[in-house]
Amino acid sequence: MRDVSLILEEVLPALRPDGAERERIMGLAEGLMKRLGEEVLGSGLDIEVRLEGSVAKGTWIRGEADLDIFLRFPRGIDRETFRKKALEIGKGVLREHRPYERYSEHPYVEAVVDGVVVDIVPCYRVEPGDWLSSTDRTPYHTQYVIERLGEREKDEVRLLKRFLKANGLYGADAKVRGFSGMLCETLILKYGSFASLLEGASAWGRPEIIDVEGHYSGREGEAGELFREPLIVIDPVDRNRNLASALSEENLWRFVALARAFLEEPSRDFFFPREAILGPRELGAELARRGSCLAILAFGRADAVVDVVWSQLRKSEAALRRALEREGFKVYRASAWTDEEYMSAIAFELEAGELPPLELHMGPPVLKGADSERFLRKHRGAEDTVGEPWVRGDRWAVEKLRRLRRVEDALEEFVKGGGGALGIPKRIADAIERGHEILINDRASSLLEGNPKFGKFLADFLSGWPRARGGLGLGR
Amino acid sequence: MRDVSLILEEVLPALRPDGAERERIMGLAEGLMKRLGEEVLGSGLDIEVRLEGSVAKGTWIRGEADLDIFLRFPRGIDRETFRKKALEIGKGVLREHRPYERYSEHPYVEAVVDGVVVDIVPCYRVEPGDWLSSTDRTPYHTQYVIERLGEREKDEVRLLKRFLKANGLYGADAKVRGFSGMLCETLILKYGSFASLLEGASAWGRPEIIDVEGHYSGREGEAGELFREPLIVIDPVDRNRNLASALSEENLWRFVALARAFLEEPSRDFFFPREAILGPRELGAELARRGSCLAILAFGRADAVVDVVWSQLRKSEAALRRALEREGFKVYRASAWTDEEYMSAIAFELEAGELPPLELHMGPPVLKGADSERFLRKHRGAEDTVGEPWVRGDRWAVEKLRRLRRVEDALEEFVKGGGGALGIPKRIADAIERGHEILINDRASSLLEGNPKFGKFLADFLSGWPRARGGLGLGR
Repeated sequence: MRDVSLILEEVLPALRPDGAERERIMGLAEGLMKRLGEEVLGSGLDIEVRLEGSVAKGTWIRGEADLDIFLRFPRGIDRETFRKKALEIGKGVLREHRPYERYSEHPYVEAVVDGVVVDIVPCYRVEPGDWLSSTDRTPYHTQYVIERLGEREKDEVRLLKRFLKANGLYGADAKVRGFSGMLCETLILKYGSFASLLEGASAWGRPEIIDVEGHYSGREGEAGELFREPLIVIDPVDRNRNLASALSEENLWRFVALARAFLEEPSRDFFFPREAILGPRELGAELARRGSCLAILAFGRADAVVDVVWSQLRKSEAALRRALEREGFKVYRASAWTDEEYMSAIAFELEAGELPPLELHMGPPVLKGADSERFLRKHRGAEDTVGEPWVRGDRWAVEKLRRLRRVEDALEEFVKGGGGALGIPKRIADAIERGHEILINDRASSLLEGNPKFGKFLADFLSGWPRARGGLGLGR
Repeated sequence: MRDVSLILEEVLPALRPDGAERERIMGLAEGLMKRLGEEVLGSGLDIEVRLEGSVAKGTWIRGEADLDIFLRFPRGIDRETFRKKALEIGKGVLREHRPYERYSEHPYVEAVVDGVVVDIVPCYRVEPGDWLSSTDRTPYHTQYVIERLGEREKDEVRLLKRFLKANGLYGADAKVRGFSGMLCETLILKYGSFASLLEGASAWGRPEIIDVEGHYSGREGEAGELFREPLIVIDPVDRNRNLASALSEENLWRFVALARAFLEEPSRDFFFPREAILGPRELGAELARRGSCLAILAFGRADAVVDVVWSQLRKSEAALRRALEREGFKVYRASAWTDEEYMSAIAFELEAGELPPLELHMGPPVLKGADSERFLRKHRGAEDTVGEPWVRGDRWAVEKLRRLRRVEDALEEFVKGGGGALGIPKRIADAIERGHEILINDRASSLLEGNPKFGKFLADFLSGWPRARGGLGLGR
């Protein structure tokens, strides 16, 4: 553990905002809140303007502050007015900063002001448990954390957030499916320190139930039945909510693996990884070295708010993966990506890009007469049947010609008309239909030309692990 | 059913031995039994000479008689004397006909006399249930059948036997793993006729229990627990024996499928199929048409009695099939063959003869710390690991280079030193070690040159169905 604390001591100073930054961020927050207060006054509604999130809690990382300013509406306001007014006020205040809409359960406004991402988010003023919208809990979260986190714990939260960011695990949005800020703070409250959390996570069970407020004291089984996720962190302000519900199973176990790797061989690289970017001339060599097949479906920007785009991209990735597997392709990895402006891509690494001409199709047990008859009627003499059905063990078998042998043909067929029939959601299907390319192996080099963002995605994709380097089993 | 009886009436006359044949066969049997009686007298032992089997029961097919003559020893004779004396007497009587040894549970003598296969088989004279050797039941079988089968039923047995022979399902030996004569006769006793048997078999369950003597009356469940085979035909003279125990599961369902096919479209071809023989110049075209891969391991004669050879060939086929599947090859069919004189072969039809360079290897759940550590220690940086292990879902995954990509390399490796380590039995391993060839696709043509027996095997193998032609889903 001596090594661990040394590394953490070395990393921490780089994460703590200095006085000047604190002053600048708080000044920015106060200025925006003042202008929001004026707009609210003009609206004639009883809306409370509040600073929330990591700046309010003092847990932001140096140089990485986001401002979350909440407009807390009285509960009498109908949903439509709530949405409209919030967007109107937010856009009004941020109008000089090219504001855009974002979306979680309801829309909100975002803009970048002096290099700081500013979110203006509506919620209702309600009592705990009486939630009208998913953001209503946030003011209670902020208050809860402020009352409990000392300066030392705030540093521990910063270590955790940086560790997660460096490894692509920070954020509960559809893009990352990782750890939210409140989840980080709650985990530090539970374990006391970053290092203790890693020790604990190394031995997490399935499910692991964390309940700092003891909402389920003596009835932990109840929590295990109520929530189906492998990590269950009971929201301190809402016993019916799992703070880790947005965390994907894969990302949970990546975190556990990272925790063990860091404890075994602690290194600064876990916080500040060297970035890998695949260039157009490196791709061919990398693929030749591996021997697997890379297939990329590339298309333009999908026309929706960024959160919807990411969520639909993930669903499209899953739908295409399932369809490829149904055709007999072995998919090693799949991932989706967009620069959120011009380009989207779904990438697959496959055991092979071309399948053998035949596939064995197993039929019903010979035992079942009616099923056997149906099977024989269907396959005997069919154009794609090779030879005749035969008895294999206790069942019928038949050799069929594969319809889709090459991954490019399969993908092209899947996305015909956008791929809606396959389960590709509307915005992505529309974008695919407007134009797409399917690139196999080093033909994907063309996408890397002058596109370091995509080069970084592809490097992460092929290394199998986003960004982390120094760790055990987690770099390239 | 009208069609069915027409076909059977047309087929039957060709199956019934005529008076001249009966006379010739009975004359041959009497002559041999007389000489055996003289030999027995000389031996000073109280051995009974008996005619058994299809000739004794009058159920043989015209032109296909086998003579089974039993030497029934008193139970006091020790096993060693029993074996030695039987071979001595049998070989003595058959000495002008080049006798050879065969083997089921114990050795016996066989020779071809005037075109008729003659078996001289020892057994003990014991009371039912008190069996000392597996052939002791035969005299009781013969007596049981003679007392119950009328002339009409004998014809029905002939139809069944010919139907089975034509489709490679007659014989309980290791070569065929099909229906014994006694099983055929018992089935006809149960169903009354060949056509009724086919009707019944079309709807056989799993297990199907047939108990003509009612040994398990009212306790059929007991029989289902005692025997694990899918078809259970209680031996009328031994409630502890299943007459169908040598029938392979695949052959059972082939019979059921054949029964349905015949009833649906009855044809003479089910009894007298046109034979297919693959010639050296036809193989290439056949393989090109299919698109699968044919792999043949060919070697010389195995040095053992023919029953042992077939049994060990089947075991070798299964061992090699399992080994191929373990390496990732998809085996559609496998079969073994020997001409019992010069050549042996094990044939595989595979989805593809060459596998992709990589394979995905799934590791333990990340949850299990000690297992994960072992997995990572083993695979990180190993020579055959591509890239690094990564987390897939809740488990570790790693891409490995395949060691054996081509089926010829795999088979060559499996049979190194004969393949004993893999489970290839001794006599076959010895034969393989004396010399073997591995032939892929049309390179197997060389084996077909001037070898119609092998050509017939290969035609049956690739059609997936031995011999049957006219039937539904069962020919080529």
